[in-house]
Amino acid sequence: MSLPICNREEAAGQLMQIAQVLSAKGWLPATSGNLSVLMQKEPLLMAVTASGVDKEFLRQDDIVVVDQDCQVVGGTTHRKPSYETQIHRLIYDLTDAGAVLHVHTVFNNLVGVYAKDGWLKLRSIELIKAFGVWEEDAEIVIPVVDNFADIAELTQHAANRLKLGKLLVPGLLLRTHGIYVWGKTWQEAKKHLQAFEFLFEYLVHAGGELPNPVTRE
Amino acid sequence: MSLPICNREEAAGQLMQIAQVLSAKGWLPATSGNLSVLMQKEPLLMAVTASGVDKEFLRQDDIVVVDQDCQVVGGTTHRKPSYETQIHRLIYDLTDAGAVLHVHTVFNNLVGVYAKDGWLKLRSIELIKAFGVWEEDAEIVIPVVDNFADIAELTQHAANRLKLGKLLVPGLLLRTHGIYVWGKTWQEAKKHLQAFEFLFEYLVHAGGELPNPVTRE
Amino acid sequence: MSLPICNREEAAGQLMQIAQVLSAKGWLPATSGNLSVLMQKEPLLMAVTASGVDKEFLRQDDIVVVDQDCQVVGGTTHRKPSYETQIHRLIYDLTDAGAVLHVHTVFNNLVGVYAKDGWLKLRSIELIKAFGVWEEDAEIVIPVVDNFADIAELTQHAANRLKLGKLLVPGLLLRTHGIYVWGKTWQEAKKHLQAFEFLFEYLVHAGGELPNPVTRE
Amino acid sequence: MSLPICNREEAAGQLMQIAQVLSAKGWLPATSGNLSVLMQKEPLLMAVTASGVDKEFLRQDDIVVVDQDCQVVGGTTHRKPSYETQIHRLIYDLTDAGAVLHVHTVFNNLVGVYAKDGWLKLRSIELIKAFGVWEEDAEIVIPVVDNFADIAELTQHAANRLKLGKLLVPGLLLRTHGIYVWGKTWQEAKKHLQAFEFLFEYLVHAGGELPNPVTRE
Repeated sequence: MSLPICNREEAAGQLMQIAQVLSAKGWLPATSGNLSVLMQKEPLLMAVTASGVDKEFLRQDDIVVVDQDCQVVGGTTHRKPSYETQIHRLIYDLTDAGAVLHVHTVFNNLVGVYAKDGWLKLRSIELIKAFGVWEEDAEIVIPVVDNFADIAELTQHAANRLKLGKLLVPGLLLRTHGIYVWGKTWQEAKKHLQAFEFLFEYLVHAGGELPNPVTRE
Repeated sequence: MSLPICNREEAAGQLMQIAQVLSAKGWLPATSGNLSVLMQKEPLLMAVTASGVDKEFLRQDDIVVVDQDCQVVGGTTHRKPSYETQIHRLIYDLTDAGAVLHVHTVFNNLVGVYAKDGWLKLRSIELIKAFGVWEEDAEIVIPVVDNFADIAELTQHAANRLKLGKLLVPGLLLRTHGIYVWGKTWQEAKKHLQAFEFLFEYLVHAGGELPNPVTRE
Repeated sequence: MSLPICNREEAAGQLMQIAQVLSAKGWLPATSGNLSVLMQKEPLLMAVTASGVDKEFLRQDDIVVVDQDCQVVGGTTHRKPSYETQIHRLIYDLTDAGAVLHVHTVFNNLVGVYAKDGWLKLRSIELIKAFGVWEEDAEIVIPVVDNFADIAELTQHAANRLKLGKLLVPGLLLRTHGIYVWGKTWQEAKKHLQAFEFLFEYLVHAGGELPNPVTRE
Repeated sequence: MSLPICNREEAAGQLMQIAQVLSAKGWLPATSGNLSVLMQKEPLLMAVTASGVDKEFLRQDDIVVVDQDCQVVGGTTHRKPSYETQIHRLIYDLTDAGAVLHVHTVFNNLVGVYAKDGWLKLRSIELIKAFGVWEEDAEIVIPVVDNFADIAELTQHAANRLKLGKLLVPGLLLRTHGIYVWGKTWQEAKKHLQAFEFLFEYLVHAGGELPNPVTRE
C-alpha cells in the first residue's frame, strides 16, 4: 500500500483549476470531457469529475473519489463518476501518470481522418519536444482507437493499442471522439495536451501534409 | 393554469448570465440573437430579450415579459420584444423546453450548404451524445428551413419542419441565418447549443464529409 | 454653429471603452486601427486616437481633439492624430455618423480578393439586417478602394467611391488594409463592424461563394 | 561599459506582463517560447525566462539573469535559462533590440511551406507598415532557417541568415518551430510580433497567394 499523494480537497482544487484553464480554451464544450488526478497509487484512489457536469462551472461537489473498481468511495457519493472512468483507471494502471485529461475539440476530432491502421504520425514540429523527444525531425506516432460505444470494448482496444505503442507518447486518440492525455502532474498533462492540440491544428490546416525535414546544402 | 416556474427577476438573472456566456464566445454579434426562458407554461409567460439589444451589455431592463400572443405584459413595457418571439412561442408550444436560445454564428450559417431537402445530417461524432443519443455511430438529422423574411411564413415552415422531424433533436437551423436551440433549463439549452456548434465547425472544416463509422477487423 | 455633442472627457471615455471591446476581439493588432467620436458637427470637432498607440492599453492622454482641417486643437496637444484622420473627417462630412471605427483584421484583408470593380457583393445572410436592410435575400455592395499610399489620393478615391455607393451601407473597405465603419453612436458603429466582420468571415470560409436565395416549392 | 537599462525587478515585471498578454492569445502553448529583456548592453546582461516554465503562470522566480556567455549570474540562480538563450544573445549582439520574443504558433509553423530558399516574401498588406516600411505595395522578405536540433548549428545559420537579410525586418522564422521577434522595447517587440502573426494568418488562409498590387485606371 502506497502513501497518499494528495487528499480530496487538494485533488478537487487541482481539478477546478484545470477545468477553468481548459474551459477558457473552449476544450470542454457541452459538458463533455472528464478530468482526474491520482490520490493514491495502491490501492488506486482517484478524484474524477462527475458525469454530465458543465466544467465551465465546476464546483467541489462535482467531484467524486473512485477506487480501482471504479466504485465511488468518497466525495459527493450520490453522484455518478464519469462514464469513461475505466479509461482513466487503465492509464493509471499502465503508466506513472498523476493526472489524466480527456477533452473533445473540433481539431482532435478532425485529425482522425489522417490516422492509418490505428496510428497518427507527426513529424518535425518543434513542439514534439514537449513529449521529451529531442532528435532533429523527431517523429511520433499517436495511438488511435475507434469510438466503440461499449465501454468495455473501448477500454480493451485502448489497452491493446497503448501496449502496442509502448507508451512512447502520453496520449491516446479516440477517433471522432477526443483525446486522453496524461502527465505526472496536471501541469505536465496540460503541457502535453496543449502540444497535441497544436500538432492537430497544424495537421488539419496542412491538409494532412507532414512538414519536410531539415535540409543541409 | 400551471404554477409559475420562476419570476421576472429570476428569469432576467438567467438571461443575463447566458447572454454573458454566449457573448464571450462571440455568438451574439451585432445585437443579433435572442434568448428566452419560460416563466409559466399555461397560460404561456416567457421572459425574452428586447429587440435590438447588444447582449454583450444586457441589462435587466432589456428584458420583457410576453404572453401567448407575443404581447408584452411585464418587464420594460415600452420595449418591443424580439421580432422572432413567435418562434420562441412555437418551441414552448411544441416541446417541454424551459429555455430557448437563438444565435447567429459564421459556422451555423456556413453549414447550410450541406443541408439537403430541409435536413442536415450528422453522424458518428461523440458529441451527438449531448442530445441523449447513445448508439454507436449515432446519426441525427437537424431540421433546416429557409430564411423567409415574413415571420408568419417562417414560423409556419418552422412548425411543419419541427413536426416532420418529430423533435428528435432540440434544434432548428435557419439557413443563412442561425440556429434555435432549446432545453429544459438554460444550462441544458447551452449544452445543446455548444454541441451543435461543435458539429457545425467539424462539418465545415471537413468540407461536408461525414466521418467513417467504427470498423471491426 | 451646432451644439456640442459631448466634451473631451466623455469622448475619451467612449473611445477607451470601444478600444477595450475591439482589442479583446483581436481587431486592433500591432497598434493598427484608429477610432473617433464626433464632439461637434459644425464646425467639426472630433476626438481621435493618437498615431501609433497600442489600443490594448489606450489611456486618456492617447486621445487628441482635431478640427475640420485635421489640426490638433485639444487633448494631448503634443501628440499627432492618426495619419488617417482625413478619412474620419470625410465620413463625418458625408454622413450623420457620430463615431467612426477603423480596424485591420485578417478576414477584412482576405475578403478583398472577392471584390470586383471596386465593389464587394454580399447576399442573403440574415446579419445584413444589421444595416437596416430587411428584404428577403437582401443584397448589399460594399465600396472597396485600393490601398493608395498617398493619403490625399486615398481620401479622394474613398470620397468618389462612397458617393457612387450612395452611402447605402455604413462601411468602406480598403483592400489589403482594413475597414472603415460608422454609426450614429459608437454602439451602432460597433454593431455595423461586427456585422461586416461576420459577413467577411462567412465569405472567406465559403471561398467567395454567395449563398443560394430562398426557394419555394 | 554601458549604463544599466533596468534592474532585475523591472525586467521581471516586464517579462511577466508580456507573458500574460501573449499567453492570453495562446501564443505560448505547452511551456514553449521564451522571452527576454536587455538589462545592460555592455557587457551584456539580459533577463530571460527559465527553461520549461509555463508562461501562463510566470512568476518572478521563473526568471534568470544571464551574461554574454549565457551563464546565469543573477535571479533564480539554480534555474537553467532557456535552451535557446544563444539566439537571444545573437539578436542583442546584431541589433539595438531591448526585448526579444520567441513564440510558437500554428500559423507561424504552417507558413514555412511558403518559404523559398530561406526567405518568406510578403507584400502589399497595410500591416507591413508596423515594420516602418511605408511605400505603396511594400514588399518584405523574412529570413527563414531550418530547425536544426543542434543549438550551435542553429545559431550559426540564424547569424548568417540575419546578416544576409541586413536586419531589414525585426524577425527570424525558424521553419516548423516558431518566430524570433525583437524591438527596442517589449511594447515594440509585441507590435512587431502581432504584425508578423497577422501576415502569417493572411498568407496561410490565402493559400500562399500574395495580394495584387494597387491598380490605377
